[in-house]
Amino acid sequence: MEILRVEAPLVCTRRVAGLQHISLRVLRDVNGKRQVAVDPVGARTGNWVFTINGSAARYAADDFNVLTDLTIGGLIDQWVNVGDPS
Amino acid sequence: MEILRVEAPLVCTRRVAGLQHISLRVLRDVNGKRQVAVDPVGARTGNWVFTINGSAARYAADDFNVLTDLTIGGLIDQWVNVGDPS
Amino acid sequence: MEILRVEAPLVCTRRVAGLQHISLRVLRDVNGKRQVAVDPVGARTGNWVFTINGSAARYAADDFNVLTDLTIGGLIDQWVNVGDPS
Amino acid sequence: MEILRVEAPLVCTRRVAGLQHISLRVLRDVNGKRQVAVDPVGARTGNWVFTINGSAARYAADDFNVLTDLTIGGLIDQWVNVGDPS
Amino acid sequence: MEILRVEAPLVCTRRVAGLQHISLRVLRDVNGKRQVAVDPVGARTGNWVFTINGSAARYAADDFNVLTDLTIGGLIDQWVNVGDPS
Repeated sequence: MEILRVEAPLVCTRRVAGLQHISLRVLRDVNGKRQVAVDPVGARTGNWVFTINGSAARYAADDFNVLTDLTIGGLIDQWVNVGDPS
Repeated sequence: MEILRVEAPLVCTRRVAGLQHISLRVLRDVNGKRQVAVDPVGARTGNWVFTINGSAARYAADDFNVLTDLTIGGLIDQWVNVGDPS
Repeated sequence: MEILRVEAPLVCTRRVAGLQHISLRVLRDVNGKRQVAVDPVGARTGNWVFTINGSAARYAADDFNVLTDLTIGGLIDQWVNVGDPS
Repeated sequence: MEILRVEAPLVCTRRVAGLQHISLRVLRDVNGKRQVAVDPVGARTGNWVFTINGSAARYAADDFNVLTDLTIGGLIDQWVNVGDPS
Repeated sequence: MEILRVEAPLVCTRRVAGLQHISLRVLRDVNGKRQVAVDPVGARTGNWVFTINGSAARYAADDFNVLTDLTIGGLIDQWVNVGDPS
């Protein structure tokens, strides 16, 4: 599972059927590389999160019919205690 | 899910059976690295899209018999609002 | 399977349902890149471990309902004999 | 799916049972990184191809019992028209 | 599938249940990056091998209960004929 930071919501009207009405977020890693994830936990811009990839990402999205390969698994609480990785 | 830009259609006559009659696109990431994806949403050259990999890519292609590992999941509308990543 | 070193436990209160009450660790590779893994073997900070990714990570976590993509597979005993890779 | 070029056949007598009597190719990407793939389409040295990874690679090899993670999905016809990526 | 060279056996007493009594090897790629693989073919230190990842790695280990994500698929015979990649 990777550690990423929420940059922004993703505005995307035209989508495949398996991602309609799903909340998507643009995340960035410490090197600035962007990825897109499904967000079942309600993360906000600036939050550090960890993400789940592969088939587990679909279960983590609460519904295996959600066609994601990356889902936010949780909000990191204590990151400030060990230093900001950015 | 990754953020990529459509570069061109892929012309490819001789293919495995599981990809006959499927529309393929060459995509590039912000560093110029190319990948090939199935396109169920009708993306055009120059569009920014996000892609779905792994087994979810096959469901996203509308038919699990499509033997892809990468499928376009949607067209990004609002990318211009947060700056062009290229 | 990758070789990583345990850096710290991950403090993370708000999580998806499939990772409640699971012990998570922040690991780093020899280049300093961080990942998060489920720990079924009781690794401590500073231990070198190897990790299992993909669907096997869920079985390695003792329960396929654990929604992980990375699980510690074992503690490396003899690493000091071949030199510290850091 | 990735874009790779066929470098050579792979000569490999001692193999796991799931890859006996299968035609293997060494492929290289534009940066020179080598990978090994199963070839169901009859690619030749110098051909540009695209490859399928993950579980779809096994279906693309015509037989799910073929234990591959990478299979050639097709020969690229028109690459010369958009410039050689090497 | 990747091309890697066997560096050493991995000594690792405390492991998850799905990897007990399995022969593990530390492998390195041409850039020196290490990975750990299950070895069903009897590779020795210094051998060049190719590896299978993902769910196929578990079948290649002869038993789907082996919780690996990387398994040696075969010993490369003829590598000396095309030059040593190291």
